[in-house]
Amino acid sequence: MNGAELALRTAVDLGVEVCFANPGTTEMELVAALDTVDLRSVLCLFEGVATGAADGFGRVTGVPALTLTHLGPGFANGIANLHNARRAHTPVVNLVGDHATWHLVADAPLTSDIESLALPVSRHVERMTAAAHGASAMTDAVRAAIGPPSGVATLIVPQDSAWGDAGLHDVPDPIELPETVSTDAIGAAAATLRTGDGTAVLLGGVVCAEELDAAKRISDATGAPVWIDTFTAVVEQGRGLPTFPTIPYFPEQAIEALEGIRTLIVAGTTQPVAFFGYETVGRSSLLPAGVEVITVAPPGERGHRGLDAVVDALECPAAAPDERPAVDLPTGDLGVGSLGGSLAALVPEGAIVVNEAATSGLGWGAAASGAAPHETLSLTGGAIGQGLPCAVGAAVAAPDRRVVAFQADGSGLYTVQSLWTMAREGLDVTIVVCANRAYRILQVEMHRTGNTDPGPAATAMTELAGPAPDWVALADGFGVDGVQAATLCEAQDGIRRGLAEPGPFLVEVLL
Amino acid sequence: MNGAELALRTAVDLGVEVCFANPGTTEMELVAALDTVDLRSVLCLFEGVATGAADGFGRVTGVPALTLTHLGPGFANGIANLHNARRAHTPVVNLVGDHATWHLVADAPLTSDIESLALPVSRHVERMTAAAHGASAMTDAVRAAIGPPSGVATLIVPQDSAWGDAGLHDVPDPIELPETVSTDAIGAAAATLRTGDGTAVLLGGVVCAEELDAAKRISDATGAPVWIDTFTAVVEQGRGLPTFPTIPYFPEQAIEALEGIRTLIVAGTTQPVAFFGYETVGRSSLLPAGVEVITVAPPGERGHRGLDAVVDALECPAAAPDERPAVDLPTGDLGVGSLGGSLAALVPEGAIVVNEAATSGLGWGAAASGAAPHETLSLTGGAIGQGLPCAVGAAVAAPDRRVVAFQADGSGLYTVQSLWTMAREGLDVTIVVCANRAYRILQVEMHRTGNTDPGPAATAMTELAGPAPDWVALADGFGVDGVQAATLCEAQDGIRRGLAEPGPFLVEVLL
Repeated sequence: MNGAELALRTAVDLGVEVCFANPGTTEMELVAALDTVDLRSVLCLFEGVATGAADGFGRVTGVPALTLTHLGPGFANGIANLHNARRAHTPVVNLVGDHATWHLVADAPLTSDIESLALPVSRHVERMTAAAHGASAMTDAVRAAIGPPSGVATLIVPQDSAWGDAGLHDVPDPIELPETVSTDAIGAAAATLRTGDGTAVLLGGVVCAEELDAAKRISDATGAPVWIDTFTAVVEQGRGLPTFPTIPYFPEQAIEALEGIRTLIVAGTTQPVAFFGYETVGRSSLLPAGVEVITVAPPGERGHRGLDAVVDALECPAAAPDERPAVDLPTGDLGVGSLGGSLAALVPEGAIVVNEAATSGLGWGAAASGAAPHETLSLTGGAIGQGLPCAVGAAVAAPDRRVVAFQADGSGLYTVQSLWTMAREGLDVTIVVCANRAYRILQVEMHRTGNTDPGPAATAMTELAGPAPDWVALADGFGVDGVQAATLCEAQDGIRRGLAEPGPFLVEVLL
Repeated sequence: MNGAELALRTAVDLGVEVCFANPGTTEMELVAALDTVDLRSVLCLFEGVATGAADGFGRVTGVPALTLTHLGPGFANGIANLHNARRAHTPVVNLVGDHATWHLVADAPLTSDIESLALPVSRHVERMTAAAHGASAMTDAVRAAIGPPSGVATLIVPQDSAWGDAGLHDVPDPIELPETVSTDAIGAAAATLRTGDGTAVLLGGVVCAEELDAAKRISDATGAPVWIDTFTAVVEQGRGLPTFPTIPYFPEQAIEALEGIRTLIVAGTTQPVAFFGYETVGRSSLLPAGVEVITVAPPGERGHRGLDAVVDALECPAAAPDERPAVDLPTGDLGVGSLGGSLAALVPEGAIVVNEAATSGLGWGAAASGAAPHETLSLTGGAIGQGLPCAVGAAVAAPDRRVVAFQADGSGLYTVQSLWTMAREGLDVTIVVCANRAYRILQVEMHRTGNTDPGPAATAMTELAGPAPDWVALADGFGVDGVQAATLCEAQDGIRRGLAEPGPFLVEVLL
């Protein structure tokens, strides 16, 4: 067998199931090897779709997907969504083809410094040095992706390593995850929670139902408030699940909300900082000065194990069941609030909602706790164009669940090619495009800089007008059916239709 | 004035005219400053459109355009087309916003190593350190972009440098280009050409009519064959212009074509190497072993000055006028040959043809020398998704000329958002999409690896089917009119209509 086949076989041996691919000439051996292993390969028309899909897949399953991209420039097209995966600590393994080793010195047109491009988004970068290296190099990459901490690993495959004879294939040892928690941190967290005031808990990363329950028990027993990061890789939400506030996006509001905290217990994340540094705010931290931070689970580890240990240490009683009513289907005018409420009323139990709705998502954020139990995936790294690809990956990961891509129009256009992969793979994704035809957040941010009356050039840079993109036509171009909705009734009908039909369906909601 | 305005004013002082932008929050001061200077700002819906447009603009004008992108992930989306610009030695100045300096240590969600991302595609990377640094930092960047050698420069603008008070604005000294040629190289080239056999000339980079004329005079006087690089930044072509063969793409054919060369005189390029390293070829150089290479103009300099000096040294007589007939409008079946011939018969004088037609462009390559005089821009770096953005930039650069985007369907989908900018700016671009609904070159390359019967997984990775993208619908979604052509007559009618109408028009040709 050649090195390409050895690398892919090793990945499959270690539990990898899917490859999101956009290959080129240097990847032909890897492409041919796809037919020799039990690996689902999913073609994407743009690399950012492949990497965002791997992010979505890894968030939902905890298992790394492969991406397959073409040398430095092809990989570079996937960096933005790998940045989001990095911030989400999603396990991902990138395979990047490169020229045959002996061809690199020729500085051929596609030659570039792949390592320099990969390092900013990868916790592990390795280069195959020979065909027989395929087994250990892939094992290193999968181990680095799974962690803990989990994250993005990049394996560069020179084409001579792919085509070379790799010899025999040994099944690698399975990867065993350590079961440790920091006893010191658990003890310190329990001690400060016992003594009372000024202690809060912050959840982030992948926030599952068990973690929410543990946080609720701690909060009920000690009175400590619980916060959730503004952007989480995954959070379970909906009726029957404990609900906690998220940290506000703008730093002035966040700083006010977190006032009075003296000790912060963090699980699966780090202490909160402002998304951007504003001249008028002049600081990065959202916490009061001098706050002590106790980390019961670092980023890239599931937070519930740390919190469970705190629950045990404090002997917290079971939490009372949460009996919130279902959210009512809104009536009246179409707007951000009524659209979010409609989505919350209509999503089925077990849905995966990929939320890149930006400013149009505020209504959903307010209503989601009254929806049927579901998972929400959000934009962890701020690199827009994540929603549609992430929905592709989530739908591949969970074919028996309904995926909703709740999508801002401006962000969605970065990786609109995702729609084709949804159509080709017949993925059950309901795409709700919030068409406000503007980079609305930038209009807000322009005001925040004190520029409340921008000139025509600046204004033109924040408007998706002249012409407004037609999302139903774009969807049609990629083989996805859709409707445009100008009223709340039309939006609700469109969402219902999307949720009922197999395969992808797009609703462009004119806000 | 603040640092953002100072930087933009300095750029305008140095001759910069256009900014292709896809900004975010950290660029708000730069966006606001667009209204304070005489700079055309063009919004793109994806960063790869902005960088590819700057490449097209710089190739046509020789003047750098600005790009404006959002931190590391936004910039990363533009890397692929900057890679092409780097290989074309196109002058480009990237402005990349970054967090305020004091916010970097917080490692906020969008923080990343911008320098590591920028270096592989930039010959100059600098970071503004204060608002008042805007003048000298911008001057450094524009100088680096103009060269010689020309190329890509990247200026990182932390937001506190943009919003800070920059003091007064001094007009910078104009940039003066040196007028040197290498006397030694000219002498050596003339000497080897005088002595006869085994000397050939290779043209690359920006190949203008003057350079073609000089090469023709040298060839007529000495018998030396002249070659043109497989991919050039710009080449003038058409009736009345000397015509020379391009080096074949596949290395076996190129090696055979270049057999017998003992000395190669290169102008505006480097010695030729294979695009990819093949196991069956086993070498990178396309030249016979031991060839002496004489560089009369290095890459990133216009080759005609070096060749003009050789003409003078050899006292070559004027070349006889080239009286080729116009290409006839083909009849019969629609195919790669008849489509390329049709385009050659129909393009008007002075057109700019951006050729990213890949395997579908072979007919054009054969017929272009019989077309009306025009310029062709091609894919210098192999990073696909260059054609449509490059056409945007070319059309902004030359509003009085017709731009033809001759485009492969697979490549075109990487940066399909370009169509919106064409519509918004009313650019006179005729888009001819060669819809073979496959990554045809990969099907060829798969065969070349010896895998002549790929399995279903590998086959699926090279087919744009199930569903086939509908380009007319996609164009409609972005506000561009178009037609689908299934016959040669329909293709010719569509091209005629596109060339006649103002603004963009798309013809999807089913091959």
